[in-house]
Formats: sequence, structure tokens, C-alpha cells
Amino acid sequence: MMNRRDFTGTLAGALAGTAFSGFSAFVPEGRHARRLALNAARLNAHLKELSAFGANPQGGVSRVAYSDFDRAGRTYVMELMRAAGLEPRVDFAGNIWGARPGTAPSLKPIVFGSHVDSVPEGGNFDGTVGSLSAIEVAQSLAEQRIRTRHPLEVVIWANEEGGLYGSRAVSGQLTAPELANKAWSGKTIDDGVAFIGGTPARIAEVRRQPGDIATYLELHIEQGGNLEREGLNIGVVEGIVGIKQWEVTIAGFQNHAGTTPMDRRQDALLSAARFVEMVNRVVRAEPGRQVGTVGRIQAFPGAPNVIPGRVVCSLELRDLDAAKIDRLYAAIEGEARKIGELNGTTFEYRSLHENVPAPSDPAVRAIIDQVTKDLGYTARHMPSGAGHDAQAMAQLGPMGMIFIPSIGGISHSPKEFSTAEDIARGANVLMSAVLLADKR
Amino acid sequence: MMNRRDFTGTLAGALAGTAFSGFSAFVPEGRHARRLALNAARLNAHLKELSAFGANPQGGVSRVAYSDFDRAGRTYVMELMRAAGLEPRVDFAGNIWGARPGTAPSLKPIVFGSHVDSVPEGGNFDGTVGSLSAIEVAQSLAEQRIRTRHPLEVVIWANEEGGLYGSRAVSGQLTAPELANKAWSGKTIDDGVAFIGGTPARIAEVRRQPGDIATYLELHIEQGGNLEREGLNIGVVEGIVGIKQWEVTIAGFQNHAGTTPMDRRQDALLSAARFVEMVNRVVRAEPGRQVGTVGRIQAFPGAPNVIPGRVVCSLELRDLDAAKIDRLYAAIEGEARKIGELNGTTFEYRSLHENVPAPSDPAVRAIIDQVTKDLGYTARHMPSGAGHDAQAMAQLGPMGMIFIPSIGGISHSPKEFSTAEDIARGANVLMSAVLLADKR
Repeated sequence: MMNRRDFTGTLAGALAGTAFSGFSAFVPEGRHARRLALNAARLNAHLKELSAFGANPQGGVSRVAYSDFDRAGRTYVMELMRAAGLEPRVDFAGNIWGARPGTAPSLKPIVFGSHVDSVPEGGNFDGTVGSLSAIEVAQSLAEQRIRTRHPLEVVIWANEEGGLYGSRAVSGQLTAPELANKAWSGKTIDDGVAFIGGTPARIAEVRRQPGDIATYLELHIEQGGNLEREGLNIGVVEGIVGIKQWEVTIAGFQNHAGTTPMDRRQDALLSAARFVEMVNRVVRAEPGRQVGTVGRIQAFPGAPNVIPGRVVCSLELRDLDAAKIDRLYAAIEGEARKIGELNGTTFEYRSLHENVPAPSDPAVRAIIDQVTKDLGYTARHMPSGAGHDAQAMAQLGPMGMIFIPSIGGISHSPKEFSTAEDIARGANVLMSAVLLADKR
Repeated sequence: MMNRRDFTGTLAGALAGTAFSGFSAFVPEGRHARRLALNAARLNAHLKELSAFGANPQGGVSRVAYSDFDRAGRTYVMELMRAAGLEPRVDFAGNIWGARPGTAPSLKPIVFGSHVDSVPEGGNFDGTVGSLSAIEVAQSLAEQRIRTRHPLEVVIWANEEGGLYGSRAVSGQLTAPELANKAWSGKTIDDGVAFIGGTPARIAEVRRQPGDIATYLELHIEQGGNLEREGLNIGVVEGIVGIKQWEVTIAGFQNHAGTTPMDRRQDALLSAARFVEMVNRVVRAEPGRQVGTVGRIQAFPGAPNVIPGRVVCSLELRDLDAAKIDRLYAAIEGEARKIGELNGTTFEYRSLHENVPAPSDPAVRAIIDQVTKDLGYTARHMPSGAGHDAQAMAQLGPMGMIFIPSIGGISHSPKEFSTAEDIARGANVLMSAVLLADKR
């Protein structure tokens, strides 16, 4: 075992002057029932280094999946894995795996990790906190020569933000036609997977079966403002909301903006505007935590002096209850039909993407509850409004997720932020949860 | 004088089986008081040939200014000018001029023409009818050895659709900063002008002074449905509406679409949607022929799972009365402020483009009235809802415009259409008006 005092000293130095002091994981059972160090300063330094890949001048990052920056960031992450004693392996879907053998090879692995790709103009904490914390856990265990019974697998999922492509390949939920979809990088999924070292033609082979994973754990930023607002350290995730996304095409009649009287227009953008407002109204009409968003829109031909003949926009609905999503969609479709009748326009919907709601495993939740309490952190149970690779992994075995506060509830934005202290707490909970899950 | 019977025979053959028979211009005064032939079949054949440059598979044309197709179309047009005995000259702004000397060289020229650039996904009649008719008039006059007193100048204006760039350079209304604007081709005006053979650094030199032009005439499709609806042949334009265009930037707060509750969003696209609907409502709230259009919109970052933090859209207002445009704009700005207050978003406006209303000259209107009557065509006076190069020329001398019906009132669309008969009537009115103006 390496010199623990030096190790702790580094941490204390890096965080001097903050109110935070609990940088150790507590292993409450068996022969490892002692406090274990985790190098939070190193973890935060690694996060800062990773943020350089695709950094935007105005702050934040655009490291969209399959881009040059994504590939460069992944190379950096694989170097970190090597330093942590995890020999990285890229699977056919482009996911990066780093395995650490257990003492009982017959046991199924405990898998933990997250993703390092971002949305366009995204932040520096979404995905990266869980990814680099997972590697840090492995490195800390290696440095302290902790052996687990279960094999451990650290995973960095490919193209989470585009629609959980890497994790859904592993869970068997990815369908072949989806490989032709365009990713934000401009590449098809097919081309993108090849670009980051995968083998699209053999992507089906990465599928694992239900029961193949002992436990899946993922640390992530909340991406909402609840934990910060309530002054809590940790969120124990009850489940991940279902997501449905559509591409909506509104067809009207393209015409000259100067010579077509207002009462003779079939303006597709006017209908699209009424659609956007109606979606907001319908989603807010009933109580609950459901959300509905139109995030993308384009008018064709898109000239200031031409009445748009066609508009293409996105529609996204999320809730923990799949039936509520379907009910909202039906209401939106009905209202849109009425909007179309007002000015002779039509609405068409094409399903872009769908994630079913994924509850976390009660036993894994209990493990996270336990270690959070043992570490002296404040916590609450909460749903995840964001989609996560964990929801794909819930298909294969018991899943649990750990949230840390997002300052101001801001995410998918350059202003996304979580404190170094909160990141350290989250990584500690992850390490303790891995070790407690290993005992179960 | 060439064989008039052969000439007329060609026309009759080309249009056999149609109800239309009046393919000649009537010159009511002086020694030319006789019917003059105009080769309408050749004109319509030329229009068809020109439509190949930038033809879209789904119909119509994308021959945006300064594109490869624009340049190729202009080369074709210059060949037609040479065949018509007009040696084409490209001025520093990229306008093409073809001069025909008069018998009284001290007289100012009669200028007539139009443009051959299109909007993206435009039609095959906007601009081209007036351009090729002007060349046909010159060719018919040459073939029939008609000499005018005034010098004649046929002009093909550069980049009409992007904002009358060529004609406003000649009228002195183009400002230097506008040369940095981006045209639809993706090029700046500066680069675009050079691309089509102009000399952007010397563009100011193309300016002509008020009084430099005896008469300006332009034949154009109506681009509205009034003439067809009322079963009329010719529109005599009273004036051209003023146009103001703005780029509107709506700033909100970019955030995660899954984790940000509906009541905590500053969704820029929701405000943009309310803006689009409000513009429609405000413009329609008072009687009159004013129009208002949002034709272009983009949300940033533009992902289905991100609440847009910023939206950029266009706003265009048109009316014959400049004061009404300003009043509508003030109302829109005030209403937009209220929309912004609803969800914490802000609106900013940048002027993109402005054309002042341009009345046509009463004496030129009288000439068009006269020749239309002499030719036996039905006609009405009407405003032009579309902007035209004629409005820039109104700064320099007496201006008149001739409209022919647009089937279904459709323009700026692949479905734009005018019949060969209507085109022939329009060209005949143009030729007769040129000759009658020459007498005045």
C-alpha cells in the first residue's frame, strides 16, 4: 500500500481554504472496513485538462460525438486509463472499456462509468465528472492495492448526447436503421463509429445479455437545480425519465412575401410558431414533472422575402411515466391538426429517438443511501429528467445513479458548473458504492 | 426592313391553336404609326433556355446572385444581346448594359430591362420575363430597322433578389458597409460583384444623376393573384411598396431540456414563436395592403434536447406608405418587449435592408395606359407589393412598370408561372411604350 499520508496531504493542500474536508471513501464492511483515500485534486485536475479538447472561446465545450475533438478527448481519457492500470479496449460500437480483475473470476462484473462527448456549445461537467471519477476510483484502488471480489469494468460510452448510441448497442436496443442517422459531427453513426475506432459492421456483437452485469453505477451532475436549491450533497436517482423525440415537418405554400396578401398565405412558419407555443401550453396544462421542448427549427427556403413553404422542427417529451408521454403526444397531434386547419398547412411526424423510462434498482439505491449516510453527506431521492447511459444498462442488471449538484441547475450550456468539493463527494460515494456492491 | 410576313408567320405557327392572336406592337404616332412585329415565340424559347441555368430537379430554379449558375445565365443573356445587336458591357457593379444609338444623340436614354438572378428555390419568370423581353424588343427593332430618337439602353441588373444591389449602385443608394453583407451564394457582395465581372472597389463610379435617364420601363410578372383573378391582361403599376428588413436576435438562456422545469425556462424559441404569431396579428390588425413576414429562423444551439438560448430570425414589412411601415414596426417592438418579459428573454433588431416607397411617373403611366388601350388589352392600375429595380431608377427619372398575370398569384416558388400569351402581350406593351416614350 502506498503512503497514505502523502496522498491525503496533496488533497488537503489542493482544497485548503474551503469548508470541505471529507475526502475519503468509507467501506463499512468486512476486512476493508476503513477509510480509503481518493485523490480528488488529481480528479479535478484531469477534468480541467479534458475540458481543453473542443473548448469554446466563450467558455464551455463543443466536443460532439465522432468529431475531431471527441476523438482527441478519448485519446486523452485512454491515457488516464493506462495510468490507472486499466488497459483500454475500444469495442465495435466505439465504447472504451478498462477492466480490473476480481479475486472471484466467476462473478459478474461491476460496471461503472459515463461519457465524454458533449452537446454543441455544452459544458465541462456533463458526463466527464462520472467518466473521470470512475477512472480515479480505479486508480485509487490500484494505488491502495484494494482487490475486489467482482471484476471491475470502467466504461466510457460513445455518443451519449446523440442518443445513447454506445450503451444502447451494448443493451441490444440499438436498431440497424439508426446507424444511418446523422450525428452532430455531420457524420452518420456508421461513419462516426468507424472514425473513433469502432467497427460498425460488427456493432451487433457488442450486445450483452440481461444478467451479464452484477451492478451498474454511474455518477453524474444533476443538470437541474434541486440539490443546490435544497442545499443537499447527493441525489440518489429513483429512475430515469423516458424520452421521445420526433422530427416535425410542417408543409404550407411557398410564395412571395410582398405580393401575397396576409389572408391568402399558407405560411408554414406561422403554423410552426403556433405549434411551439401550443406544445408549451399542452405540456404545462397538467400537474407533474413532465417537460416538452422544441429545440431545433428551420424554415425553407429561409429567405426574409419568401413566405416559408416548409418548416422542420424537433419535438421532445420526457416523463417517468411512458403513458403520460403518449397522452401528451396525442394531445399535441390533435391541437396541431387544428393549427394546420387555420391556414391550410399540414403536420407530419417522424420518430427520431425513444428511450423507455428506467427505474433504478432498489438494492443499489439502498447501497448508495448507506454509503452516503456513512460518509456524512446529505442526500435525497429524485428522478432524473435527463437521459443517461444508465437507462440502457438497466436492461442488463441492477442499476444505480449518483447525482451531485449543478450550480444554478444549468447544464448543456457553457455556464454548466459543479464545485470541486461536490465532485470529490460524488467520486467518494461512487468508490464506496462500488466497494459495498462488491460485498453484496 | 426585313420580310415581315415570314416573321409574323413564325409567330402564328408557334402559337397555333391558342386563343391569342395579337402579337404586334402598335405605334400610334408619327412615321412609325403602324403595327410592328415582335417575335414572341423566340422570346418564349429564350425564356425556356435560360431556365436551364440552375434548374432544380423538383422544378423552378435556384440561380441566386453571384453563384456559378448566375454567372452562366448571365453569359447566356450576353449572347442573346449580341444576337440582338447590343454589345454587352458589364459595369463595376456587375450590371449588364446593351446600348442602341438614337438619331438624336443629345437626348437622354430610354432604359428598360430587369434581372435574371432568382431567390433560392425560385421560379422561371420573375425578372427573366422583363429581361429577355427587353432584349427581344431591341432585336425586333433591329430586325425591322426601326431607329428611335433617344438612345436605348437594355439593362440586366445584378443581384435584384438580394436587395437591388446593382440598381441601387446606379441610383447612388447603395452604401459602402453593405458590400460586406453575405449574399445567398455565400459570397459577400464585394466578392460576388467581382465574381460576375464587376469591380467592387470602383462600384461608386456607376452612379448616375437624377435627370440622366429620359424614361425607365420595366416589364415584370405581377407575383400576386389580382390580374388573374380579375381576368385582366396588364397591370399598370402605381408605385412600388417600401420594404424594411431586420435581423431579430432573441436571447434567452440555454439549458438542458430534460432537467429544467417548464416554469424555470428562458426559452428563446418560445419567445420567437410568440413573436412570429404577434407580427402576423399586428400587421393584420389595421386595414390596408401592408404585409409582414418572418421568412428565416434559426435556434441555437439547435439540438432537440437543448432549450434554445438564442434565436435569430428575419422580419420584413412592406407598404406603399413609409409612415405605416414605421408605425407597424413600433407596435411590433412594443409587443415583443412584453413577450420578452413573460419568460426573461430579450429582443434586438439590426436593420438588414430598406427600400423607400417609389411612385411611378404619371406621364409614363399614361403612356402605358395608352399603348395598352391601343393594343386592345384589358388593364388596371395597381401597386407593386414586390420590390423592383424600377424603384431605384425612380430616383433618376420618370419610371413606369408593366405587370402581366402570375397564374395562381404564385411567385418565389417553383410553381411560379405566366402563359406564353401573357408574356407576348407584356413584351408588346413594353415595345410600344418604348416607342411612344421616344416620341414624347
